Amino acid sequence: MTDPSSTYELLAVSVRKLIDATIRTELEPNAISDAAAQIDVITSRLSAEQMPGSFGERPSTDGQGPASGNAVIGVRNPLAPPLTIHQGNGLVWSELVLGAAYEGPAGYVHGGVCAMVLDHVLGATAHKPGRPAYTGTLTLRYHRGTPLLKPLRAEAWVDRVEGVKTFAVGRLTDSDGVTVSAEGVFIHPRQ
Amino acid sequence: MTDPSSTYELLAVSVRKLIDATIRTELEPNAISDAAAQIDVITSRLSAEQMPGSFGERPSTDGQGPASGNAVIGVRNPLAPPLTIHQGNGLVWSELVLGAAYEGPAGYVHGGVCAMVLDHVLGATAHKPGRPAYTGTLTLRYHRGTPLLKPLRAEAWVDRVEGVKTFAVGRLTDSDGVTVSAEGVFIHPRQ
Repeated sequence: MTDPSSTYELLAVSVRKLIDATIRTELEPNAISDAAAQIDVITSRLSAEQMPGSFGERPSTDGQGPASGNAVIGVRNPLAPPLTIHQGNGLVWSELVLGAAYEGPAGYVHGGVCAMVLDHVLGATAHKPGRPAYTGTLTLRYHRGTPLLKPLRAEAWVDRVEGVKTFAVGRLTDSDGVTVSAEGVFIHPRQ
Repeated sequence: MTDPSSTYELLAVSVRKLIDATIRTELEPNAISDAAAQIDVITSRLSAEQMPGSFGERPSTDGQGPASGNAVIGVRNPLAPPLTIHQGNGLVWSELVLGAAYEGPAGYVHGGVCAMVLDHVLGATAHKPGRPAYTGTLTLRYHRGTPLLKPLRAEAWVDRVEGVKTFAVGRLTDSDGVTVSAEGVFIHPRQ
């Protein structure tokens, strides 16, 4: 039997490739219109049975991870790269390559996308199972452009913890070193 | 004759709806696999003729806006909401509603997505035609959760200009007030 979670994950993989093709295609207008019409048919079939609102608002009792819809790490979310978060030796890190969908200046990752990735990776230093941390403040310093289509690494660690506040620092790097550095305060709401 | 830019734009509109359906569908696995296979066929047709790398790296001599591939405002980029940037009376603003694809905590916009939107809107205070500004630093303060599927407004203005540096401030609001505030320094590289 097919595992439902991974089938959904494969659909998201297909849609990520479609996003890239949508940005880069140079087919003539009639062929583009045909593709859009076919996509609309698929969309209406998929949405004939769907959860209300958004992924995170539903009970997750079917084995799917609770973060499957997340904008940064969600395996079911085609907008997410998605990041895989690793932890060990006091460090949180993720390795990634960002394509055409994440572009800001020509050939470079959008500064806002760098912020999004770092927000998540710094925040992950404070996450505990069943007890997420929320961003309090986040400061980013951009050293130079972050290249598209090249291997990148985002990493973060805890500087200190004061009560419900985790002070985290981190950076985004390419093979030549740091492109963006960050520091942030992440908060566990009192339960 | 169909205008090529708007045909591409309509394709991106269709793919945005597909992204939402991909996250929220509850169809059974076989139907999901069929949809993925059909999407792969469309993707391979679209990518049979495509620009190399990313949108921003190509010459734009066909009437398409140079930012059509942009991760935040790109009308051809299904990942972009896309934001429409308005300017007037010393203010830059954009009105938006963010759906399931932008989720972080259940029912709320991902903190990193808020950062991405504010980076772009604050940066837009410094943009000049043909002379983009790059983010130097960006600091975000999160006041409370930013709701999904509700009308939001991002706005920014220039605090002061010092040489090549524009100091901008701004905020993201919903109908109850500010959810995230921001300040940033945006730099025009010397030409």
